[in-house]
This record gives sequence, C-alpha cells and structure tokens, in this order.
Amino acid sequence: MVGFTPSFEKLVEQFRLLPGVGYKSAVRMAFHVLDLPEEKARAFAEAILEAKEKIGHCKICQDISESEICPICADPARERGLICVVESSRDVLAIEKIHEFRGLFHVLGGLMNPMEGIGPEQLRIKELLARLPDGEVREVILATNPSIEGEATAMYLAKLLKPFGVKTTRLAYGLPAGAELEYADELTLCKALEGRREIE
Amino acid sequence: MVGFTPSFEKLVEQFRLLPGVGYKSAVRMAFHVLDLPEEKARAFAEAILEAKEKIGHCKICQDISESEICPICADPARERGLICVVESSRDVLAIEKIHEFRGLFHVLGGLMNPMEGIGPEQLRIKELLARLPDGEVREVILATNPSIEGEATAMYLAKLLKPFGVKTTRLAYGLPAGAELEYADELTLCKALEGRREIE
Repeated sequence: MVGFTPSFEKLVEQFRLLPGVGYKSAVRMAFHVLDLPEEKARAFAEAILEAKEKIGHCKICQDISESEICPICADPARERGLICVVESSRDVLAIEKIHEFRGLFHVLGGLMNPMEGIGPEQLRIKELLARLPDGEVREVILATNPSIEGEATAMYLAKLLKPFGVKTTRLAYGLPAGAELEYADELTLCKALEGRREIE
Repeated sequence: MVGFTPSFEKLVEQFRLLPGVGYKSAVRMAFHVLDLPEEKARAFAEAILEAKEKIGHCKICQDISESEICPICADPARERGLICVVESSRDVLAIEKIHEFRGLFHVLGGLMNPMEGIGPEQLRIKELLARLPDGEVREVILATNPSIEGEATAMYLAKLLKPFGVKTTRLAYGLPAGAELEYADELTLCKALEGRREIE
C-alpha cells in the first residue's frame, strides 16, 4: 500500500485546490489539521462555512460585505460624487490602506479576458451603470491594473460611460516610488516621460 | 475602514495557522473559498471534520489509520520480524514508495528535542517496546533523520532496545544519488568515506 488513508487523501485534495498549494504543501497542511485539537479543527471548518454563509456583496458597490450595504457605501462622510472602479476587493483594501481616497468604490469582480472566456457580461458592469443616472456622480476613476486585461476593461468602460457625461479618469502610469531609472522597463519609462508634469 | 469583514478575517486567520502560509497567501485562500460554489465550500469544511473524526492511530505501529490496525500491520505478506522506526507518517510513505521494504513500521510521532521540550515520554516509545517481548522481532531499523534530533533519538532507542537482544541498525549515511563530490558537505563526505564498501 502506498498512500494515505481515504479521509486523509480527501483532505489533501481539498488543500490542493487552494491557490498556490502543491501536493507537498497540501500534505503538510493536512497533517497540521490532524495535529490540531478537536475544537480548533472544528473552528477551522466553521470559519469556512460561516464565511460562505455570512459574506455576500454590497448592493451598491458589489464589494464583499456582511451587510446589505457595506460600511464604505454606508459612510455619510464619503464623497458620493466619486467612484473608483476596481477589479477586486483586494484592490479596495489596497486603496483604503493609503488613507487618501474619500470617494466610493465599485468592484467589477474581474477583468475582461477573452482568452479565459470572461466578457463584459461576467463583470458587474450593469450595477455600475445603474449608479450613474441620478446625476450625483461626477467622476469615475478606472483603477484597473495596468495590464492588457486591465487596459481593455478600462477602455471598454470609458466608452460605456461616455453617454452619462461623467468625467472618466485612469490612474497615473509612471515610475514606482523608490525605483531606479536604470532598471525601469521601457514601457514604464515611456509612460513616465509621456506623463511628465511641470514643477510649480 | 481598513480591513475585511469579520467572517472574512476569521477565515484568513484560520488559513494563516497552516504551515508555510503568510498573510497574503491566507487572503488569497480565503477569497478562493468565497468564490467556491456553496457545495464545494461545504465539502472542504466536511473534509476537515471527517479527517479529524475518522483518522486515528494504528494500535500496533502508531501510524495514522482509519481502522484499529492499519493496512500494513494487517498485511500477512509483510515480514513481522523487521520493524522500521520512523519519525512520522510522511516517512512511512517515503519508504513505501521505494517498494523495497517488506517489514513493518513504527511511527514515533516526533523526535527528541530538548530545546522544544520534547522528551522520550512524548514519543510513542513504550508502544515500540511493547512489540518486542514475544521474540518475533529480530531487527529494528532506526530510520530517523540524519539530524541532531534524529541521531539523539536513535541513540536513545538503541540503548533501550539492547536488553531485548534484537539487532538494531541505522540507515546508511553517504552521498545522495546523483550528487557531485565537489559540492558535497564535509560531514556527508566524511560519512561516505567512513562507510565505504568493498566492490565484489
């Protein structure tokens, strides 16, 4: 007999489904679970079920939320005229961390990617468009990644947003903080040059 | 607000407890769970609970097992006179994979490690000694790792086994297959020289 017991193999398989986890790591994780005291293993299983049960999407911005309206959308101190459109909840967190943005978000839930069969209808675009007609929104920042898919999605959205007469912007391209010119890739350097600003 | 929802954070914390998983990986894993269809998330949670519930230790060799006696110990074709003592179930699997060993195993469940407070009483040593008195066992291979803890544990066991009059052996040290002499560490080279064998 080569192999673990059936229940063990089943657990290993579950861990292997996680992103970035290969067979050896999955085995280590499964052994970790076996070594856990009963109540800790139960807490782990329950955290999975609870997250699935409690977490849904904010009705407005489509970010993950445990309430119908997420805390950001419900915050009266946020600027309601400014919507930052991002790919995922992770991006919301990244932008929130800099404590600079006071507007609202809209989470697309992905980027257009024809190679993987993700078209605009798979993204939460109509929910974005539904937020515009009341005239409150004056600017939409298209903050998708500076990748091919991110660019394509931003361009597609910019076209859709045009008829609403809102200002549409894109995050600035350029050298990342702390970068050295010498090691910057050509595209970044091109974009940094193109987007140069006058020093006042 | 910076941070995810409470249920999400709870799930991230659970993933962080897994070996080799940092915060960023844990967040990716938690998002993976959120993206799972309901029944797949449930299957994951259940695999954890089922593994904890069904998997115990073989009464004889202490390897993980879903039955009282594991398939290896229950196999009448295995040589009952030969016991290979290893640190963990992972080592059993490693040795089973080479399809060379036809004896039985004994899983210690760890190695002696005074720095981490692991003494002989934490290991399944008395269960090993209980297997010896009937005179069936003629050789015990101490197949703990060639590390300080592995050596110390093997030496400790060798002393304990002496009164039983069984042959006690240790896995050979030497150059690993495919190694280059030039890059071998000194200790390995010393051991390889020391354990040199006549070519017949």
